Amino acid sequence: MNYKMMGRLFGLILCAESIFMLPSLILALVDAKGRVALGFGITVLLCAAIGGALLFGCRKAKNDFYAKEGLVCVGLSWILLCLFGALPLFIGDDIPSYVDALFEMVSGFTTTGASVCTDVESLSRATLYWRSFSHWIGGMGVLVFVMALVPIGGKQEGFTMHLLRAESAGPNAQKLVPHMRRTALILYLVYVVMTVLCFIFLVFDMPIFDAVCTAFGTAGTGGFGIRNDSMASYSPYVQTVTGVFMVLCGVNFSCYYLLLLRNVLGVLRDEELRLYFGIIGGAVVLITMDVRAMYETFGEALRHAFFQVGSVITTTGFATTDFDLWPSFSKAILVLLMVVGACAGSTGGGFKCARVLLLVKSFLRNIGRVQNPQKVAVIRVNKKPVDEKLVAGTMAYLGAYVLIIVISFLLVSLDGMSVTTNATAVLACFNNIGPGLEAVGPTRNFFAYSDFSKIVLMIDMLAGRLEIFPILALFSRKEWKIG
Amino acid sequence: MNYKMMGRLFGLILCAESIFMLPSLILALVDAKGRVALGFGITVLLCAAIGGALLFGCRKAKNDFYAKEGLVCVGLSWILLCLFGALPLFIGDDIPSYVDALFEMVSGFTTTGASVCTDVESLSRATLYWRSFSHWIGGMGVLVFVMALVPIGGKQEGFTMHLLRAESAGPNAQKLVPHMRRTALILYLVYVVMTVLCFIFLVFDMPIFDAVCTAFGTAGTGGFGIRNDSMASYSPYVQTVTGVFMVLCGVNFSCYYLLLLRNVLGVLRDEELRLYFGIIGGAVVLITMDVRAMYETFGEALRHAFFQVGSVITTTGFATTDFDLWPSFSKAILVLLMVVGACAGSTGGGFKCARVLLLVKSFLRNIGRVQNPQKVAVIRVNKKPVDEKLVAGTMAYLGAYVLIIVISFLLVSLDGMSVTTNATAVLACFNNIGPGLEAVGPTRNFFAYSDFSKIVLMIDMLAGRLEIFPILALFSRKEWKIG
Repeated sequence: MNYKMMGRLFGLILCAESIFMLPSLILALVDAKGRVALGFGITVLLCAAIGGALLFGCRKAKNDFYAKEGLVCVGLSWILLCLFGALPLFIGDDIPSYVDALFEMVSGFTTTGASVCTDVESLSRATLYWRSFSHWIGGMGVLVFVMALVPIGGKQEGFTMHLLRAESAGPNAQKLVPHMRRTALILYLVYVVMTVLCFIFLVFDMPIFDAVCTAFGTAGTGGFGIRNDSMASYSPYVQTVTGVFMVLCGVNFSCYYLLLLRNVLGVLRDEELRLYFGIIGGAVVLITMDVRAMYETFGEALRHAFFQVGSVITTTGFATTDFDLWPSFSKAILVLLMVVGACAGSTGGGFKCARVLLLVKSFLRNIGRVQNPQKVAVIRVNKKPVDEKLVAGTMAYLGAYVLIIVISFLLVSLDGMSVTTNATAVLACFNNIGPGLEAVGPTRNFFAYSDFSKIVLMIDMLAGRLEIFPILALFSRKEWKIG
Repeated sequence: MNYKMMGRLFGLILCAESIFMLPSLILALVDAKGRVALGFGITVLLCAAIGGALLFGCRKAKNDFYAKEGLVCVGLSWILLCLFGALPLFIGDDIPSYVDALFEMVSGFTTTGASVCTDVESLSRATLYWRSFSHWIGGMGVLVFVMALVPIGGKQEGFTMHLLRAESAGPNAQKLVPHMRRTALILYLVYVVMTVLCFIFLVFDMPIFDAVCTAFGTAGTGGFGIRNDSMASYSPYVQTVTGVFMVLCGVNFSCYYLLLLRNVLGVLRDEELRLYFGIIGGAVVLITMDVRAMYETFGEALRHAFFQVGSVITTTGFATTDFDLWPSFSKAILVLLMVVGACAGSTGGGFKCARVLLLVKSFLRNIGRVQNPQKVAVIRVNKKPVDEKLVAGTMAYLGAYVLIIVISFLLVSLDGMSVTTNATAVLACFNNIGPGLEAVGPTRNFFAYSDFSKIVLMIDMLAGRLEIFPILALFSRKEWKIG
C-alpha cells in the first residue's frame, strides 16, 4: 500500500468536505440556530485541520498506485466522508443518536434517501441543506469531483482512471476524451447544467430553498424530501418537472456529451437507453391502468404512475403518493424496478440497465446453445461485440449482488419486521432507492430498525453505491497485507 | 424432428400411466366409490388405447435422435402425463374443475405438493393414493423409469443419455456405470429400497395406507399430505422418521451407490454433501433458538425446526407446525432454503446445492480477480477442476431462474394477493416445495388463485422440475422447424 498517497487523498477529501459544509454553517448562523451552527462549525474546523495535516504530512507521496489500492481508497474515502458528515447532525442535536446520524449521511452520500427522521420538517434548514447537498456530491462521486478540480500529482492519469472506474456506476466506465481529468470535468459540467436547469424550472412554483434542495436530490437521484410527505403536497407542475428531471438524470451522462457533439443518431440507437425508456414506458402504462380507479382523473393516475416509476427506476425515492397502498400488481412492478435501476454512467443506482441487457442477451444465447451446442455466438451491444470477460463479470456481479442481498435480508430479519418490509428495506438500501414497502413504505421510515440492522443497511448502501467490490475489498485481509 | 420416435415414446408413457393407475382403480372399487372408479376406469382404458395405438403406429421408428429433440420430448412427456393424470380427479368429481385437477397433478408429478384442495380428508382414498404415487413417479423421473424397464431400440444409448440428462436434477448428471440403462436401473433400485425402508419405519406407528402415501411423498420429496394439517397430528416418532427420510432423499443418489461400493471416504469428502448437511445443521440450530419460546420443551422446538428445515430444503413441503406463525428471522431462513434446494441427482428440487457451491466459488474467484487481474484461477470441486462451460452454464441457469421467477411473480400479482404471498407462491412452485407464506402458508392452499395464475404456477412447477430448458424448448419456434 502507498499509505502516503492515500493520506494525501484523504486530506483532499476532508478539506473538500469542510468547504462543502460552509453553506450549511452560514444557513445555521442566519437562522440563529446556535447548537446547529456549533455542530457545523466544529466539524468544518475539524475537517480542515485533519485534512490540512494529512496533506502537509503526506506532501512527499510517491505516485505509484495500483488498481487494488484504488478500491480500498474509494471505500475508505466514502466511509470517511460519511463519518465526518454525520458529526454536525449529531452535535447539532438534529439527530440525537450518532448511529442514526451516520445512517442519514450514508443514505445521503450514497443517494439512497432512506431516512430515520420521523419528522423532517422539524429539522433545521442547515441540516436539510446538508442532507440534500450530500446527494448531489454522492451522485456523481466525490472522488471524481476532487479529481476534476485538483491535480493530484505526476502519474495522475492511471490513478484517476482507477478511482473513477471504482466510483462510477455500471460495468463499462470509459473515457470520453483521452484525458481522464477532462472526462471527469465534462461529466461534472453536464451534471451542473442539469442541476441548474432543474432548479430554474422548479423555482417558478417553489420557494428558493425548496427548489435548491429538490434540485440536488433530483439531479443526484437521492430522494431526501424536505417535507414529511416527500413531494405529495407540491403542485402537479413541480411534481412533473421533478419526474422528468429524475428520468433525465438516470440516463448515461455520456449520452449528453454525444448530444453536445451532435451525434443524435448514436444516442437514439443506444440499446441501454432504449431498454431504459422501454421499461419506463411499459411500467407507466401498466401501473396507470392498474391504479386508474384510485384517482379522480386519468391524468392524475398517469402523473402519479410516471412519478413513482421514474422515482424508483432511477433509484431517487421521492414519492407523490403512498404507493404502499397501490394494488399488488403495481407494487410487484415497483419491486422489480427497484432491482433494475438506472443506466450505467448516470447518477442512479441499482443493478443498471446495461447489466440487465447483458443478462438477457446472455440468457437468450444460452437457450440457443442448448439447441445448438456447436454454434459460437458473440453477444453484441450497439452492434459491437462484447468482451466475454464483461459477460462473465456481469454474471459474477449478479452472484455477488444476490449473495449480499440474501445475507443482509437474513440479518435484518432478526428485528422481527414482516418479510416484505425486510426484503424491500434491503432492496431499497442496496439499490440506493430509499423507501420500500409496508413498514419502510414512502410515508414511513427506517427509525424502527435496531442499530445493528441500521449498520447492515449502511454497508448495503455503500456496497450498492460503489458496486460491491470497493466495500468488499475493505473486509479482505489480502488487501491489507500488501505493503 | 423424428416424430415416429416421439410417438413411440409417448405411447410407452401412456401405457405406463394406465398401469400406474390400476391400484387407484382397485382402491376405488374396494371403497365402492362409483364415480371415482368410473374416472379411473375411463382414464386407464383411454391411456391404454391411445398409448397402444401410438406404439403400433410408430413401431417402425428410426433410431436417430438429437439432444434438442430430447428436450422437447421430455417437456411433452411430462405435460401428457399430467393432462391424462388429471382426468380421474375431474371425472371422479373429487376436484370439480379441470384446471384445478390439472394443477393438483402437475403439483404431484413435479413433486411440488402445492394443493388446491381445501379439505384433503374428504377426498377418496383412490385419489389420495394417486396424488401421492404421482410424487413417487415424478421424483426420479418417469422417462428414467420407462428407460430403465423397456428397451427402446437400437441406438438407445445416446438417446437415453439425452433424456436422462434432461429429466434428472442438477448440473452434472453422469453415468454411474458405462451403460445408461443400467445407471437408470441402479438409481431406481436405490430409490425403491429407500421407499420401502421409509414405509417399514413408518408402518410401526401409522395405518398401512397412510404409511404408503407418506413414504411415496417422502421418497419423492413431494409433500402432498393426506390430512388437512399435513403431518402435524402424527406422533413425534412418525414426524422424526419422515424428517430423516426427507433429508436422506435430498442427497445425491449416486452417493448411495458409492456407499454400496464401500467408497465411504469419497462420500464423506463430497463438497456438495457437506454443504447440504452444513446448511441443514446451521438452519436447524438458528431456527431452534429463534422458536424455542413458542414450544414447551427444547426437544419439541428442535423437532419442529428439523422437520421444517428438512421439508423446505429438500423441497418436500410437509409441515408439522404452521411456520407462517414463526418469527421473521426463521421465516427468512426458510425463504432462503426454498431457493437453495436439495443436492443434484436427488429427488429434490430447487436451485440445487451443487449450483450454490459453484456460484459461491465463482464469486470468491471473482473477488480474487478484482484484486489480482492477471491470476488464472480454476474452480475446483472435490479437488477436481471444473469445466468453465459448467460454470458459465450455472451462471446462465441463475439468470434464467431469476427471469422466470420475476415474470411469474408479476403475472401472479394480478390476482391482488400480498407481495409476500405472491413471491413465496412462485418460489414454492418453481422450486417444487409446495407451501409458501401468508395466504399460501402450510395450513392454507392455492385455491384462491385465479385459473390464469394457476396456469402460470403450473408452468413454473414444470420448468422447475425439468430445470427450465425442456419447458422453454416447447415455446421455441426454432425447436419445431427442424423436420
